Amino acid sequence: MKIPAPKQMRDFYPEDMALRNHIEAAWRNASKRAGFQEWDCPIVETLELYKRKSGDEIVDQLYSVSTRGGNDQFAIRPEMTPSLARMVAARQGALPRPVKWFCIARMCRHEQAQRGRLREFFQWNADVLGVAGPIADAEVISVAIDALVELGLSAADVEVRFNSRTLLGALLTGLGLPEERHPAVFAIADKRGKATDEELAKLYAGLGLDDQTTARIRRLLDLSSLDEVKRFVAHEKVPGCEAALAGLDELVSLLADLGKGDFCRFDMGIVRGLAYYTGPVFEMFDRAGKLRAVCGGGRYDRLLELMGGQPMPACGFGMGDVVLGELLKDRNLLPSFRLGLDYQLIPLDDERLSDVIRLTGRIRAAGRSADFAHKAGGLGKAFKKASENGVGKVVLVGGDEWSRGCLKIKDMTTGVESEVPLDRFTP
Amino acid sequence: MKIPAPKQMRDFYPEDMALRNHIEAAWRNASKRAGFQEWDCPIVETLELYKRKSGDEIVDQLYSVSTRGGNDQFAIRPEMTPSLARMVAARQGALPRPVKWFCIARMCRHEQAQRGRLREFFQWNADVLGVAGPIADAEVISVAIDALVELGLSAADVEVRFNSRTLLGALLTGLGLPEERHPAVFAIADKRGKATDEELAKLYAGLGLDDQTTARIRRLLDLSSLDEVKRFVAHEKVPGCEAALAGLDELVSLLADLGKGDFCRFDMGIVRGLAYYTGPVFEMFDRAGKLRAVCGGGRYDRLLELMGGQPMPACGFGMGDVVLGELLKDRNLLPSFRLGLDYQLIPLDDERLSDVIRLTGRIRAAGRSADFAHKAGGLGKAFKKASENGVGKVVLVGGDEWSRGCLKIKDMTTGVESEVPLDRFTP
Repeated sequence: MKIPAPKQMRDFYPEDMALRNHIEAAWRNASKRAGFQEWDCPIVETLELYKRKSGDEIVDQLYSVSTRGGNDQFAIRPEMTPSLARMVAARQGALPRPVKWFCIARMCRHEQAQRGRLREFFQWNADVLGVAGPIADAEVISVAIDALVELGLSAADVEVRFNSRTLLGALLTGLGLPEERHPAVFAIADKRGKATDEELAKLYAGLGLDDQTTARIRRLLDLSSLDEVKRFVAHEKVPGCEAALAGLDELVSLLADLGKGDFCRFDMGIVRGLAYYTGPVFEMFDRAGKLRAVCGGGRYDRLLELMGGQPMPACGFGMGDVVLGELLKDRNLLPSFRLGLDYQLIPLDDERLSDVIRLTGRIRAAGRSADFAHKAGGLGKAFKKASENGVGKVVLVGGDEWSRGCLKIKDMTTGVESEVPLDRFTP
Repeated sequence: MKIPAPKQMRDFYPEDMALRNHIEAAWRNASKRAGFQEWDCPIVETLELYKRKSGDEIVDQLYSVSTRGGNDQFAIRPEMTPSLARMVAARQGALPRPVKWFCIARMCRHEQAQRGRLREFFQWNADVLGVAGPIADAEVISVAIDALVELGLSAADVEVRFNSRTLLGALLTGLGLPEERHPAVFAIADKRGKATDEELAKLYAGLGLDDQTTARIRRLLDLSSLDEVKRFVAHEKVPGCEAALAGLDELVSLLADLGKGDFCRFDMGIVRGLAYYTGPVFEMFDRAGKLRAVCGGGRYDRLLELMGGQPMPACGFGMGDVVLGELLKDRNLLPSFRLGLDYQLIPLDDERLSDVIRLTGRIRAAGRSADFAHKAGGLGKAFKKASENGVGKVVLVGGDEWSRGCLKIKDMTTGVESEVPLDRFTP
């Protein structure tokens, strides 16, 4: 009896692996071009680490891990940020600043599957720690965009929408909401566009907010340019917004300097659900509006302290492979899957197999890729397969050429056939 | 309070990640040169999959995984072969033969740690399915060696020792042991060199073998050349060894054809502990004899059936990153860890920061790597850091050069400084 794979997780057959490697290469290249260094942590962490950052609720989404005879409670990592904070905190004094780190990490969340969401996925994180100003936020947004550009996407395909938790906080305070109530409002505001109007109204009512305050919050979230916000702030005389607005103006200017102006726009509706954000927040969407967010992140200046480290400003993002794969498919940007061997060797008679294998060893030792047919015959089929597999050159070993001490080589790109003396063949 | 990492697992800080990437690149390059295709499976599989292959005992070593409200029992993968068999069985009719697949996989085993063994590690697997003859065994042994050669190791550093389960089986049968008792003997024989003589004697006694049979088994395992085995077989008139011996002769000849003769030798002491091997088996060791096996594998022709597939011959190996890392360290073959940026930009006054950022964006968009100092000043320290980080060129933005519309560029390899007009600068 066959045994099934775990539900809502993926097997990567070679053609699936080719897409994953294609995406991961773009992530890695963009990170390196921007001077980020790669890091990683174990696939499991203590349950305590996730509870510390996200509270007990997170446990419902975790894959819990235990060992026979072991007392420790672990979980498969559902995100990388707590591990990042743990590792930076452990060597905080010794690490050169700024800390610019990226990772490409497998993770698991036990959620209901939907389009663009699976229970196991790969996520690219890029974070800058140790920089308080918006230059760090601009850097992480820019590197996220760079990877998408490498994958063939443009500002016509994707858009980064950003906001600021500091600004949102000042505005909510201006509406008479004390700071301790903000996280609950952020969590509901983040559902805008995902939940219906009715569901949202119910959630706000659940907070005990009067209809007028709810209406003002919802009007606020519709503001979609910094000019609109500035007019609103001036008109309503909301105090404490200046620094946040100046920071966002600077962010806009830095993104333009980095050549990413066309990709980015302010949107008060971008809130992010998690409590831990403290400054700019952003999400990236396909402009067609068909998919979940491609990427999301923001500033989290207080996490290092929470994880037992010294205070340290920080910002970063996560970008998953599932939505991105869907987007590439939608835009017809999937890579072609070909083995791409340099040489395919074929014996023309079975007595030559040993020579074929020796030649294969020589080609590989010279750093080129080579494979060989295990027996003679079926030339037509062998050439067809070589062509499909993207083989560069087919080498025929045997026949008249061999008796003259030569190989017959066909260049599969040009179609040209040539006879090359064995002792002069250099792969 | 700081939260610790899970015990006997590794955090990968950038310098650790550099070593891991160095090893993985050699594994991947060797695989591709030999025409293997990459695959992967989920990090968890059903418990049933591992029990099916290895019996209930395996459960002690597993990291068990469960979800709230989920009934399925999972485990973090402790090896890849059961998943390989599951995935090949699922598409057995459609896959082109031979199936030559490799993977580079994270896995976890809850074992006691010792030198070269951790609870989380990365393992390279390369397998050939669909080929019954020793050419497939030679291919997997050869690709394992190729990766080590790429890492700088030679036949003076490592050695592959091989044997055959078929031969061993025939010899044990010749000693009067029926086939159903062989797996228990293999499991004990595999402990040779790891357990003391006394412990081994006790284990053999536990099987109920008389002293004479035990002594003969142990003498058998000391045979260290095929010639010795052939003399033994002829002298003792052991039946049923011919095919296995001919297969091993062919394997020796194929390994020589592939240029790997110097690396390989027969050793009757190589048994492998697992029950599922059916033909040639092999392990790779450092010649200094200081470390655990670098790599181990063999033929497992009956696994596909066990996993619900059609019968299909198969062979392959696993090579872990931990022992290999120790070996590279012992041989002084660790890679140097440098960021290796193409350009480091430095503003000479803070008013030029925006220009620096624009230039950084241009360089990255041209596909080169670049980072920048966030403020002016500290030139001496900046050059020192650039030199340590392996920066190619330092670009100074500001000062007199800037007022002439130029950049000052220092090539860190040659030490040559030049002045380049901004509009003629091409990264």
